[in-house]
Amino acid sequence: MMPRPSLEFWYEFSSTYSYLSAMRIADAAENAGVTVVWRPFLLGPIFGAQGWNTSPFNLYPLKGRYMWRDMEREAARLRLPFCRPTPFPQNSLLAARVALLGIDKGWTPDFTRAVFAAEFGKGRNIGDPVVLAEILTAIGIAPETALAEAETEANKARLRRAEEEAQSRGFFGAPTFLAEDGEMFWGNDRLEQALAWAVERANRSKWPA
Amino acid sequence: MMPRPSLEFWYEFSSTYSYLSAMRIADAAENAGVTVVWRPFLLGPIFGAQGWNTSPFNLYPLKGRYMWRDMEREAARLRLPFCRPTPFPQNSLLAARVALLGIDKGWTPDFTRAVFAAEFGKGRNIGDPVVLAEILTAIGIAPETALAEAETEANKARLRRAEEEAQSRGFFGAPTFLAEDGEMFWGNDRLEQALAWAVERANRSKWPA
Repeated sequence: MMPRPSLEFWYEFSSTYSYLSAMRIADAAENAGVTVVWRPFLLGPIFGAQGWNTSPFNLYPLKGRYMWRDMEREAARLRLPFCRPTPFPQNSLLAARVALLGIDKGWTPDFTRAVFAAEFGKGRNIGDPVVLAEILTAIGIAPETALAEAETEANKARLRRAEEEAQSRGFFGAPTFLAEDGEMFWGNDRLEQALAWAVERANRSKWPA
Repeated sequence: MMPRPSLEFWYEFSSTYSYLSAMRIADAAENAGVTVVWRPFLLGPIFGAQGWNTSPFNLYPLKGRYMWRDMEREAARLRLPFCRPTPFPQNSLLAARVALLGIDKGWTPDFTRAVFAAEFGKGRNIGDPVVLAEILTAIGIAPETALAEAETEANKARLRRAEEEAQSRGFFGAPTFLAEDGEMFWGNDRLEQALAWAVERANRSKWPA
């Protein structure tokens, strides 16, 4: 039996378009027969490396204004609630650390969707540990333990390694989808192409030339 | 009888994603029952206003490298030839002026497609008047007259007015689609949404509330 193709989903909790992908990738991948590998990371260090100290949507107001309108339309099209969190971007460091923790235990997808839904569906402040504790409780995870483990040196180092990987692969935004052969797709608008690529490559490798 | 809905298609001749839209918008709009209003313009002044002296794909190499790969994939998906012109971006001033000339006479769509096909399909230099003359000849337009008319003060002023309109509307990239009610859609990935918007608004206005 062939293994299912997989696709890495690299996302940033403060990223608007990552929200759209996070809410729909599980169903879309299931329909395509692809396994999703959830890869939380931070855009801050990547933006910082090119001299940006905040989101490019704040640095370039015309693009930012358009993005908020586009998000309203796209969220409506995908039947997702949407509101603009304050401040934008939210501090996503703790959420990313917690999300990494859940990978081995399998609760990262539920946690990720719950964080994005709180942030962009309800305008909650996801930089607040109290908000993250509520979210953990709601998905059945003991919040004190998880929040403490998230801040251990071992877990912080794990996020730093993910950062280094993102930078070495040349990521510049989120969401970014990475196929097993290294092919990269950027943006919620490329989820379908990324899944199709993963499936096509897997079929090709079944019959080596 | 209700008038057909229309959609303005703002494009820049040196823009890669404008190429993809230019080659497919006529068929897509016809299928949707929408009239396309072709609006050539220049991104240079808009980029210059935010301090960029070249394409952001040159200023941000990671994004640029990704864009060329994405263009290869998207062009293949749309069954369009694709090659990378040198230099990039091409000087698109004369092509934009010529394209404006053809609007009243109806040959702007043919000219636009021919310029994009020469540039991104064959790697020709569209800043060269000789190349533009060949293209004009191929679509049945006398090149000497058109190139001379393109450089008249009246026609130059027409392009400046288009620029002013683009800037006053807050455009920041190309292609940009503008619906009759002022709704703006940016990027080849939004052509379908822009057409759907134009159709939906037109249907709504048939039955005033």
